[in-house]
Amino acid sequence: MDKVGASDIKALVFDVFGTVVDWRSGVAREVAGFIASQKLTVDPLEFADAWRREYVPAMAEVRAGNRGFVRLDVLHRENLVKVLRGLGVNPESVPAATLDELNLAWHKLDPWPDAVPGLARLKEQFIIAPLSNGNIRLMLDIAKRAGIPWDAILGAEVVRMYKPAPSVYLDTAELLAIEPAELCMVAAHNDDLTAAKACGLRTAFVSRPREHGDGQTKDLVAEDQWDFVAESFVELADQMLGADKG
Amino acid sequence: MDKVGASDIKALVFDVFGTVVDWRSGVAREVAGFIASQKLTVDPLEFADAWRREYVPAMAEVRAGNRGFVRLDVLHRENLVKVLRGLGVNPESVPAATLDELNLAWHKLDPWPDAVPGLARLKEQFIIAPLSNGNIRLMLDIAKRAGIPWDAILGAEVVRMYKPAPSVYLDTAELLAIEPAELCMVAAHNDDLTAAKACGLRTAFVSRPREHGDGQTKDLVAEDQWDFVAESFVELADQMLGADKG
Repeated sequence: MDKVGASDIKALVFDVFGTVVDWRSGVAREVAGFIASQKLTVDPLEFADAWRREYVPAMAEVRAGNRGFVRLDVLHRENLVKVLRGLGVNPESVPAATLDELNLAWHKLDPWPDAVPGLARLKEQFIIAPLSNGNIRLMLDIAKRAGIPWDAILGAEVVRMYKPAPSVYLDTAELLAIEPAELCMVAAHNDDLTAAKACGLRTAFVSRPREHGDGQTKDLVAEDQWDFVAESFVELADQMLGADKG
Repeated sequence: MDKVGASDIKALVFDVFGTVVDWRSGVAREVAGFIASQKLTVDPLEFADAWRREYVPAMAEVRAGNRGFVRLDVLHRENLVKVLRGLGVNPESVPAATLDELNLAWHKLDPWPDAVPGLARLKEQFIIAPLSNGNIRLMLDIAKRAGIPWDAILGAEVVRMYKPAPSVYLDTAELLAIEPAELCMVAAHNDDLTAAKACGLRTAFVSRPREHGDGQTKDLVAEDQWDFVAESFVELADQMLGADKG
């Protein structure tokens, strides 16, 4: 693979859950009150993990064409019902409005500490946007609450397909009126970058060894020759903005 | 019509060409060099007006279903060829790259002086986004150059239809996961607000009596009972943020 300078890149798109924001701690914080009120014994972090485990299979139905596109907020809401059943809670016993409110946990996630400072610097030179499976309102609420300075909200709902389907990456480049090689995918997940690279995008891996807490075993290191590898968005900005000066 | 307070409104969406930015002066400035290089005698402002006159008929073909959705950058590029022909210039005689560059005139428009200060204040309380017929990259370039702090880029390309088709307004409310009555359309054009109101949106008219220069005859005043009527975005912010305190 040719090593590229950042000067070839026009736009950076970011995975969000795990890469920009710490979903696990945030969801755990938001569900703690509900767990207490229901007198459940589950640990809030385990609740968050259980909810997240339903994420990939739910999207797979859309990617497989078994179901038309529905936004992630809808899948999260359905998955919440599954999680409750798994914990022995009858979802019918909980007011729908309570579950709707609980579903907004995903809208209130905090960025990793380096994310906003790094993005503010990267924005000076590049178009920056989320390329998440999260829907527009979900991304918007996270950004507005956390002060994330996106130039636009892109992602699954705009292209009406879920990552890692190739059309998500290719249609996003097309929307931005740039070539795939001018678009760089930034993610803490090797599989997201593998899919982006197969579409001709540039790739940047930012490790998030705490995404899954103490016991994390995957995505601890770069598993391919990504164009950029960094341990924070600030380090990525150092590399990309520095690279451009060279 | 019931008078609403701003506290019922969750998001404000904005017409952009004419309402947020001064397209006529900006396009004229950007085409002046080309006019000189081609030794044309047309006034740059007249060139801008001629280009803009092709805008509505071009979109009408898409709205009528005679043509699939194409982004405004494509329509602008086609319209540029028509304008040149009207001026007696053979478009084939001009390098395509020159016309492509000229087409970016629409990406380099300045906001009216009150727009960014007003939007910065409105953003504190509301979701703010463009709801323009301009495409995502076009809106993004204008915003990035001018420092417009949109929370998201919405509009024609996201919903794949042009205003004033009802689906543009209704699908935008749906994307934002709010009711039409919780969404307020802000525009300097009465016809945009008429279409929005028919879909159940709230409406705000901000007069832009210089959009078409000295001889402007339309949209000088509010022609219906819009929910808010102001002469600048700062005045609109005064009304909406003040209204909410009451």
